[in-house]
Amino acid sequence: MPGIGTFEITYEDPHSKARLGRLWTAHGPVDTPVFMPVGTQATVKSMAPWELEAEDCQILLGNTYHLNVRPGMDVIEHFGGLHRFQDWKSAILTDSGGYQVFSLTKLRQMTSEGVWFQSHVDGTRMFMGPKESMGIQRILGSDIAMVFDECPPCPCTPEYACQAVERTLSWAAVCAEQPRAQGQLVFGIVQGGVYPQLRERCAKELLALGAFDGYAIGGVSVGEPEELIMPGVHMTVDILPRERPRYLMGVGQWWQMSESVAAGVDMFDCVMPTRLARHGTVFTRNGKYSVRAAGNRLDERPLEEGCSCMACRRFSRGYIRHLLNVSEILGVRLTALHNMHAYFDFISRMRASIREDRFGEFRAETARVYGPAPAE
Amino acid sequence: MPGIGTFEITYEDPHSKARLGRLWTAHGPVDTPVFMPVGTQATVKSMAPWELEAEDCQILLGNTYHLNVRPGMDVIEHFGGLHRFQDWKSAILTDSGGYQVFSLTKLRQMTSEGVWFQSHVDGTRMFMGPKESMGIQRILGSDIAMVFDECPPCPCTPEYACQAVERTLSWAAVCAEQPRAQGQLVFGIVQGGVYPQLRERCAKELLALGAFDGYAIGGVSVGEPEELIMPGVHMTVDILPRERPRYLMGVGQWWQMSESVAAGVDMFDCVMPTRLARHGTVFTRNGKYSVRAAGNRLDERPLEEGCSCMACRRFSRGYIRHLLNVSEILGVRLTALHNMHAYFDFISRMRASIREDRFGEFRAETARVYGPAPAE
Repeated sequence: MPGIGTFEITYEDPHSKARLGRLWTAHGPVDTPVFMPVGTQATVKSMAPWELEAEDCQILLGNTYHLNVRPGMDVIEHFGGLHRFQDWKSAILTDSGGYQVFSLTKLRQMTSEGVWFQSHVDGTRMFMGPKESMGIQRILGSDIAMVFDECPPCPCTPEYACQAVERTLSWAAVCAEQPRAQGQLVFGIVQGGVYPQLRERCAKELLALGAFDGYAIGGVSVGEPEELIMPGVHMTVDILPRERPRYLMGVGQWWQMSESVAAGVDMFDCVMPTRLARHGTVFTRNGKYSVRAAGNRLDERPLEEGCSCMACRRFSRGYIRHLLNVSEILGVRLTALHNMHAYFDFISRMRASIREDRFGEFRAETARVYGPAPAE
Repeated sequence: MPGIGTFEITYEDPHSKARLGRLWTAHGPVDTPVFMPVGTQATVKSMAPWELEAEDCQILLGNTYHLNVRPGMDVIEHFGGLHRFQDWKSAILTDSGGYQVFSLTKLRQMTSEGVWFQSHVDGTRMFMGPKESMGIQRILGSDIAMVFDECPPCPCTPEYACQAVERTLSWAAVCAEQPRAQGQLVFGIVQGGVYPQLRERCAKELLALGAFDGYAIGGVSVGEPEELIMPGVHMTVDILPRERPRYLMGVGQWWQMSESVAAGVDMFDCVMPTRLARHGTVFTRNGKYSVRAAGNRLDERPLEEGCSCMACRRFSRGYIRHLLNVSEILGVRLTALHNMHAYFDFISRMRASIREDRFGEFRAETARVYGPAPAE
């Protein structure tokens, strides 16, 4: 078995920058491109681990900020880390908490060491900076820790974006020096908003630290106009080293994922499959739809014809619509089971298309079905 | 295979009136004593059918009133009945809707044909009587339909209880004459509140109709003092024919079930395992407890030591407490999985104790662990 942190590129698409790879973690291999389901509070919402295992899910994302608030690090430490706490045997990536500190909390005060803020749950005054974040991620024992960064919302001024990059870089240097859990990898994060020079500077200085096992593209899909998203991804990926995994944070629309893979991205996470499931939105190969719509009342078809997930094997749209309509938990369970299966199926079909030199077709089809509406 | 409606008594306890039996329905056998999980809105709350199948669950209860409101009978009829709608392959018993009409709704008006009331969901004016209830249960296609009865709350005057029995009897006669789904059995219901003469009269007149495949004891555990519950059960069972199944409606406390089995009851239903699961209350062989209690924060033990349910095989009390604490659906799923397993385990141990002539010990142990607190 290759050493922890090894990233094998097993195939490169001759027609795009897409590649197939395998990242070795302390909890086994992660085949890329990969979609990481989000388990914010030590569970993927509404799902049991055996339901993710059935999808051959190799890696989950956990949220440092939320887990630090509840259950708290004394609990996680007592249980010997997040894997044991939630009984997840494959890999876990934890974010740094930076995004939540800057988006969820109130009354923030910045210092060069980090951020004072009030907990979103009970208003408790708390502090988090690079040392605290890495300390928490060490206790969580994730396989991949992320550096503590500042992710400014869009729009923001070039001056503010520049300050955020400077803070992100100085914090990244601190993160690189913190003690880690055994076998824990650490990824750097490129910020810089919609400003190419800032992103370039951030990427180069992160690389110069020579300390990271992979690189993430942060601050994408945080409110900027849609037409700026893909150019930002392309530009950032191009500065990152070929031989390390690249992770586009928080992006999970299907066409954005296939276009980003074409740009050379390897890893994704997103709350969409479970969040939209709670609203009754269903992903299929032919697009999304709402199973709550009145038109599905008598529909005997499964959520997606030909789908092999547990929801589609046994239940009709009419039944699942009824369950959601009367707020039965099983309704959300079934749409989440299906959506998660659809996401894994999407990634698996994307990988196959790369391997079989059909990725161009796959991208075109994904853009046709899931792409943004053409500008008028 | 014996004919539908056959009730085989396979063993009788020489020391009590307990018996082991098997009731044959259009969807297979039901071994008694049996606990029927409640699937009010076409699902047992938070559970998937495969999780009940794993417990060898042979029969569910469905609620006529709720299913008639949502999804509505046009939907159920379109899907070919409740079994197909919710993909449940074993037996289903439906209640008559009487209990809900009298307990959930407002602005009721009684006529000799039934009750006008307002839907608890949107206030729609609706009517239900014996003909309507049996018509709905025919569309639901349940294996066992219950007659439409009036279940008065306790306390109620002897005059009101008497009127309710008279209505229940006249409605039972109407129910007996209604068309049924193929292979559908119909059970009569003995009412009479806390008045022995009324219960006796009700039972005798129901029997005189000669129309029913089984008999239920209604109006128990509806607010009467605890010490009146078991005498009422004993007295009613003693009037009912030995050769037909006896169903004690809505009773699901463990000591009440074991004492009622000793009195000759065969069937039970109750929302307790799933309802208490939502509040974090866990059933074990050694009693109930709340997994939400702060003392479980660092507890590495499963919900119940030695338990083989999916929750206990993988998760700690500390983890499940955290999930409930942060309102994650998985928390409720796990406590419901465990409680349902505990109920099936309880019934299975009770059956074994009868078969092995240890039922006296089993009753004593159940009363010791789960019985009412002794009077002071």
